[in-house]
Amino acid sequence: MNTFGNIFRLTSFGESHGRGIGGIIDGCPAGLELNLELIQNDLARRKPGQSKITTQRKEPDQVEFFSGIFEGKTQGTPIAFAVWNKDQHSKDYNDLKDVFRPSHADYTYIKKYGTRDHRGGGRSSARETIARVVAGAIAKQVLAQPGISIRAYVSQVGEVKLQKSYAELDLTKAEENMVRCPDAETAEKMIARIEAASKDRDTVGGVITCVVKGVPAGWGEPVFNKLHADLGFAMLGINAVKGFEYGSGFEGTKWSGSQHNDVFVRTEEGIHTKTNYSGGIQGGISNGEDIYFNVAFKPIATLLKEQHTVDKNNNEITINPKGRHDPCVLPRAVPIVEAMAALVMADHFLLSKLNSV
Amino acid sequence: MNTFGNIFRLTSFGESHGRGIGGIIDGCPAGLELNLELIQNDLARRKPGQSKITTQRKEPDQVEFFSGIFEGKTQGTPIAFAVWNKDQHSKDYNDLKDVFRPSHADYTYIKKYGTRDHRGGGRSSARETIARVVAGAIAKQVLAQPGISIRAYVSQVGEVKLQKSYAELDLTKAEENMVRCPDAETAEKMIARIEAASKDRDTVGGVITCVVKGVPAGWGEPVFNKLHADLGFAMLGINAVKGFEYGSGFEGTKWSGSQHNDVFVRTEEGIHTKTNYSGGIQGGISNGEDIYFNVAFKPIATLLKEQHTVDKNNNEITINPKGRHDPCVLPRAVPIVEAMAALVMADHFLLSKLNSV
Amino acid sequence: MNTFGNIFRLTSFGESHGRGIGGIIDGCPAGLELNLELIQNDLARRKPGQSKITTQRKEPDQVEFFSGIFEGKTQGTPIAFAVWNKDQHSKDYNDLKDVFRPSHADYTYIKKYGTRDHRGGGRSSARETIARVVAGAIAKQVLAQPGISIRAYVSQVGEVKLQKSYAELDLTKAEENMVRCPDAETAEKMIARIEAASKDRDTVGGVITCVVKGVPAGWGEPVFNKLHADLGFAMLGINAVKGFEYGSGFEGTKWSGSQHNDVFVRTEEGIHTKTNYSGGIQGGISNGEDIYFNVAFKPIATLLKEQHTVDKNNNEITINPKGRHDPCVLPRAVPIVEAMAALVMADHFLLSKLNSV
Amino acid sequence: MNTFGNIFRLTSFGESHGRGIGGIIDGCPAGLELNLELIQNDLARRKPGQSKITTQRKEPDQVEFFSGIFEGKTQGTPIAFAVWNKDQHSKDYNDLKDVFRPSHADYTYIKKYGTRDHRGGGRSSARETIARVVAGAIAKQVLAQPGISIRAYVSQVGEVKLQKSYAELDLTKAEENMVRCPDAETAEKMIARIEAASKDRDTVGGVITCVVKGVPAGWGEPVFNKLHADLGFAMLGINAVKGFEYGSGFEGTKWSGSQHNDVFVRTEEGIHTKTNYSGGIQGGISNGEDIYFNVAFKPIATLLKEQHTVDKNNNEITINPKGRHDPCVLPRAVPIVEAMAALVMADHFLLSKLNSV
Repeated sequence: MNTFGNIFRLTSFGESHGRGIGGIIDGCPAGLELNLELIQNDLARRKPGQSKITTQRKEPDQVEFFSGIFEGKTQGTPIAFAVWNKDQHSKDYNDLKDVFRPSHADYTYIKKYGTRDHRGGGRSSARETIARVVAGAIAKQVLAQPGISIRAYVSQVGEVKLQKSYAELDLTKAEENMVRCPDAETAEKMIARIEAASKDRDTVGGVITCVVKGVPAGWGEPVFNKLHADLGFAMLGINAVKGFEYGSGFEGTKWSGSQHNDVFVRTEEGIHTKTNYSGGIQGGISNGEDIYFNVAFKPIATLLKEQHTVDKNNNEITINPKGRHDPCVLPRAVPIVEAMAALVMADHFLLSKLNSV
Repeated sequence: MNTFGNIFRLTSFGESHGRGIGGIIDGCPAGLELNLELIQNDLARRKPGQSKITTQRKEPDQVEFFSGIFEGKTQGTPIAFAVWNKDQHSKDYNDLKDVFRPSHADYTYIKKYGTRDHRGGGRSSARETIARVVAGAIAKQVLAQPGISIRAYVSQVGEVKLQKSYAELDLTKAEENMVRCPDAETAEKMIARIEAASKDRDTVGGVITCVVKGVPAGWGEPVFNKLHADLGFAMLGINAVKGFEYGSGFEGTKWSGSQHNDVFVRTEEGIHTKTNYSGGIQGGISNGEDIYFNVAFKPIATLLKEQHTVDKNNNEITINPKGRHDPCVLPRAVPIVEAMAALVMADHFLLSKLNSV
Repeated sequence: MNTFGNIFRLTSFGESHGRGIGGIIDGCPAGLELNLELIQNDLARRKPGQSKITTQRKEPDQVEFFSGIFEGKTQGTPIAFAVWNKDQHSKDYNDLKDVFRPSHADYTYIKKYGTRDHRGGGRSSARETIARVVAGAIAKQVLAQPGISIRAYVSQVGEVKLQKSYAELDLTKAEENMVRCPDAETAEKMIARIEAASKDRDTVGGVITCVVKGVPAGWGEPVFNKLHADLGFAMLGINAVKGFEYGSGFEGTKWSGSQHNDVFVRTEEGIHTKTNYSGGIQGGISNGEDIYFNVAFKPIATLLKEQHTVDKNNNEITINPKGRHDPCVLPRAVPIVEAMAALVMADHFLLSKLNSV
Repeated sequence: MNTFGNIFRLTSFGESHGRGIGGIIDGCPAGLELNLELIQNDLARRKPGQSKITTQRKEPDQVEFFSGIFEGKTQGTPIAFAVWNKDQHSKDYNDLKDVFRPSHADYTYIKKYGTRDHRGGGRSSARETIARVVAGAIAKQVLAQPGISIRAYVSQVGEVKLQKSYAELDLTKAEENMVRCPDAETAEKMIARIEAASKDRDTVGGVITCVVKGVPAGWGEPVFNKLHADLGFAMLGINAVKGFEYGSGFEGTKWSGSQHNDVFVRTEEGIHTKTNYSGGIQGGISNGEDIYFNVAFKPIATLLKEQHTVDKNNNEITINPKGRHDPCVLPRAVPIVEAMAALVMADHFLLSKLNSV
């Protein structure tokens, strides 16, 4: 159950305070010239300590590849990799050994497995997403060949919401500020909101929007593995995610069909739709328009505030966590959203080769 | 790609105007005494023509089982079944043979497969969900043993929104009105809203809420197959679904962590949480509280209005569809949401037997 | 666990004396013009009553398709089908309800499932292979496009062994006699051997050889899903099979490497090997030479002789089975071996589209 | 395609002369106390240089675990591991860069992938089996709980064949000599046969027999995943394997059914069979008797002799390989056979928990 994907598959391993985080990518086609720098860049976008609004933990997060690449090219064989853990202060967690922290996975892991690695969240730590970012960065390179690009950005932090749609924005600007919102003005407000949370030793949630451009019509499987179902599954598997919507999403539920339908029109570049409330997917299959979706993140559970809870021995206790934590997970989650989207799209790119005789 | 589930698996087949709709359930444990009436009941809740606000097509939708059941009991072998098609007016669709209807799957199927069964939407028809309702009704019976119940209801139609949370409602009342909303007053408004759409030859979307009670702590897989990720995947695979959220969902993104965290408390029935913004799932694993989630449905695309579009031969045309269609898919989708939830929960029930030595 | 294949997948259902035997084929590419007669032909080669050396049960074994085919072409959607049961004498089996017949699956099914459909072997009956023959006949048509042919024949019955290798024989002659051995003289001896067994109310085993021609170099997966491992898995899943070997097989274990190695040579048609002890597969991947392998079948367990055994209630008893049974399963198993080989090869044909960028 | 197993799954990575060989085990139950020494012991039984009849390469083959184990216990999370490569003389292989060695995978890899890591066979090297031995050694510990033991031994080398059946032998004696044959006298002859091959710069094949004891009745899946089909698949995936048979195997094809049937008898320990030609498996499901099977290994292709072949550029050439190679792979393959058997049995042990309600 630690494998993601049907054809392009990632199997992930690792705990927060174990030897490291890594994975095996199976099903990557042979002959792809890999740009390792692009992989490391995405890890840098995910890593802690990159700005004043993220945790100040310092983790170099340098990926090492073990197999599947020879003379710079993928070999069609499994690509194994790891990022070794470095800056882990495992002792910080000794006090929490028997504690069930509110809204964490401590209690549920014990109930499921009867045992758990309590150090830094173990396998439930968001540090596990390193494996996804590495695999996603390779998937992006698979997708670059057919001309597909994936860009995510922060569109909401707490109640601060970006009012413009993705189509009105230059998405490359998202990387120009530390909160990764492509609108400079809104970015300022979001940063202020995060700093307020941080000062208050509290956390804040938000929304990430992701846009996939260049997908031809015909990708996706019609029934269970609808393109958006696979995207939703991928996003809901990211730590702290509480919701997913694509195209018109929850808002569209209020409309009439006559408002919502995307009329087909003839253009010089072939058939297109006048509007795109479908979010580029109809009947589970891409229709050649931009694919876009929103991902809801809750405020993360690790507060540096006093909280009441219960421990393993059924004692009611009070905890007052210490450590170095993110007040808002959104900016660092942008490359994770992109990575998961890339894994899904690479999978469907390969699946699309099997459609017809 | 027409198989759903890991252990308890449904493989579905069938087109709207072909011989029938059916499937094979593999992985159902042996020795389960099946109540066939309960299965037929769920089909009746899904079938067209059940009230004045649904399509007036008459389909008996009687399920026939072919295998895997002997002397009333499951045998551990594959359970195959079909509902044969009866009231199909295939000729109604001849005019639409070459047309790409707006926001339908006509265009994307042709792009994917190079061919399609155009009669009544073929495989993209919501009639395919019959297979899911049958399998889900069996999954419900698997889940009844460990005491799990699943109830869905319509919580929004267009802009008409039920203001109460599930905990304030008697969910059994949802079956007492034709729109399947457990609050009689809101139900009236919803019905009026659907009738207005119908009169206007238009359609309207909405939201279904689903509640799963009785799940013990410890179900779900921590990384990709988080319990809510599997639920989201299941829901997003239903026709016309545009979004999924669980627990606090999109609303919770606006809160602070200190508001959002669910504090653990000791009770006579063991450890519980004071609030349940987590929606019964923490770190992807059930924590013993109620599981609840929302599913967003767009207004369906089949309008009985004149619309502009393009056909297969790249001609701009105007269509004016006839036929018998639902102005709002929500009331009939309630058993589908329950069925998919049941498939996910039965899968995780079986998976939970493998957690530890 | 009733699904076979990775990309081209068959999910099978049905018991010997239930409603019928059938399956769902998922992953068949769209746009393939199906020849239904070829499918029915393979069923006729498998069906009982076809000659004096097979069981005299009469089963028409007419396949009915439910989905996935429109205007004679595959649609890329699931192809569901069934052969309804007709000539079942279920009452013949009432006496055997509680009996554990020697070397049958009666005892093991009860131990596994706690219940079983005892009529005619239920799911353990070789009648289940009907689903495989139908799916295999479609897989053969998928393979016909890249020019691949699959032919199996009986090469041994009891101690009567065909002395010539496949390369010395005209394999089409196998269909000219009732035992399906391409050498007329040996066929005579085999038929006599089967008739002797029949007269003795006994059964006899044997070997089927299968040859796959036209496979280009490069099919197969190098580690676990070696082409021959998938073929072996497929063959060992056929009822009564006890062994599998390819190329030089068990005999080759006695040789030296210098005898066994297949030297590469340049020819006008490209690179080939001088000998083919590798059986057309090296490192798990096809090398462009003929693929050939042997499948060992035990004498089937259903004897019309008195035998001692034990029943469900732990009583020692004597049985004296009646009914209409095959003295030798080999002639009817030839199309089953071909079908399973076709399923494996179609799967690897599709997988081979994913090898490189 | 580099994943083995359904519930207890190994995903393997690594090339002979890359960074190392390793894998991820997913689906191992939590709470198992691991004996690391037993794992290292099996690696020692596989490693080169262990006796005068194996290659003299020195590889320490020390396994390192990265995840999934905490305080000596499995956590239910993925267990990642590697054995780093040490004694690789990659330059030895530069001359072979463009050569298609007879009966190796050089040619087929290029045909499949268009590229290959030529150093020491890359991914096609038997060094990859290290991952299987590690995972198998853990699977053995999973199986030790329900009391299952797995023992393999060499039963044939070239034409030297052990005449006794497994039941007449003390299998623990297999580890007392370097060829791993439990009969001292036959072992001597086998060693002499291997030394003769070695002196002749040639290689020799043979057969490994494997016995699984303690499996209760009821493991295995009845149709495709028959217990012996999964075992056969596992064995045929091992480098150099050409055949598999279980129970009476190819020999049994010559018998009558009345000779072959295993009669059930009542004993103090419950129901058993008088004979065991079924090899402990009936209808694909274990019947509680010993499971035994034979695995055929060809003489390996790497000879230190002059051989003719063709290179990448279609030149006919003569090669005269150097290096340190095994004249006979059998003794070192014994733990690999055991490991693969353990993976299959652990998988079915876990699957058996899902049989009935």
